[in-house]
Amino acid sequence: MDETRGPKVTHKSFLYKTQLAWLENRSGTLSGEQKPSMRVSSPPEFKGEAGVWSPEELFVGAVDTCTMTTFLAFAKRLQIPLVSYSSVAEGVLEFSDGGYKFTKVILRPTILVSSPEAVEQARSTFHDAHGSCLITNSIHAEVVVEPSILVKT
Amino acid sequence: MDETRGPKVTHKSFLYKTQLAWLENRSGTLSGEQKPSMRVSSPPEFKGEAGVWSPEELFVGAVDTCTMTTFLAFAKRLQIPLVSYSSVAEGVLEFSDGGYKFTKVILRPTILVSSPEAVEQARSTFHDAHGSCLITNSIHAEVVVEPSILVKT
Repeated sequence: MDETRGPKVTHKSFLYKTQLAWLENRSGTLSGEQKPSMRVSSPPEFKGEAGVWSPEELFVGAVDTCTMTTFLAFAKRLQIPLVSYSSVAEGVLEFSDGGYKFTKVILRPTILVSSPEAVEQARSTFHDAHGSCLITNSIHAEVVVEPSILVKT
Repeated sequence: MDETRGPKVTHKSFLYKTQLAWLENRSGTLSGEQKPSMRVSSPPEFKGEAGVWSPEELFVGAVDTCTMTTFLAFAKRLQIPLVSYSSVAEGVLEFSDGGYKFTKVILRPTILVSSPEAVEQARSTFHDAHGSCLITNSIHAEVVVEPSILVKT
């Protein structure tokens, strides 16, 4: 055994499954085990249906949600006095290198904390969470974050 | 003007927006304009809630849905006699290069056509759609496809 090495850390793998069934035109039903099924479609500009989730929006929503849940995990561990977290996310789909792809996702979270001392801690924790988000780690698009950290008055 | 060049093709850019609000623990509400809101959470293995959509599943579902809608667009243009399309997708989340990320997404669609002559056309069209899927183009994970093309008897 190499005594200079630390203990071996083993990491688990995880599987995530979804099911999909075509209904009509460019629309279908997306489902997952014990989850509410949702109608999905191409967005209207790609001849799909308005008012239902498109793969484009699921993609943007996945990035924003993963960033939030990662922040929530870190904030809890650090006991940051979090009051609220809301976010608006925007994905930019562009033609690049011969095909359409998301080149950028912009996240604009508004994070409310209960004490002025927590503002900088929340800001640095948010940037750590952004760097650790497993969806951000899985995509080519640049994820730009523009957080607003406010104190509840 | 360079006469050796063909006509200039311009490609539009598109924006996709979502909103997110924290509710409690690792859960929140994901919404989009004129879309049904959905409860989202970390998956249970990351201290979240069972029975609701996680960013991991939204990511996998986005890949599968985009591949299907791209296939539907191509199949319609080529007048492939499509009877049904259903798919099961699986994303592999692994620790790699210092962080968790999706390293692979496996799509297993079952595509039913109404004539034996359409089988090979559906197969090659599915592979074209896979190559053109804008979500697949946007991610690092390898997307593996294992289609079953069947004739309705």
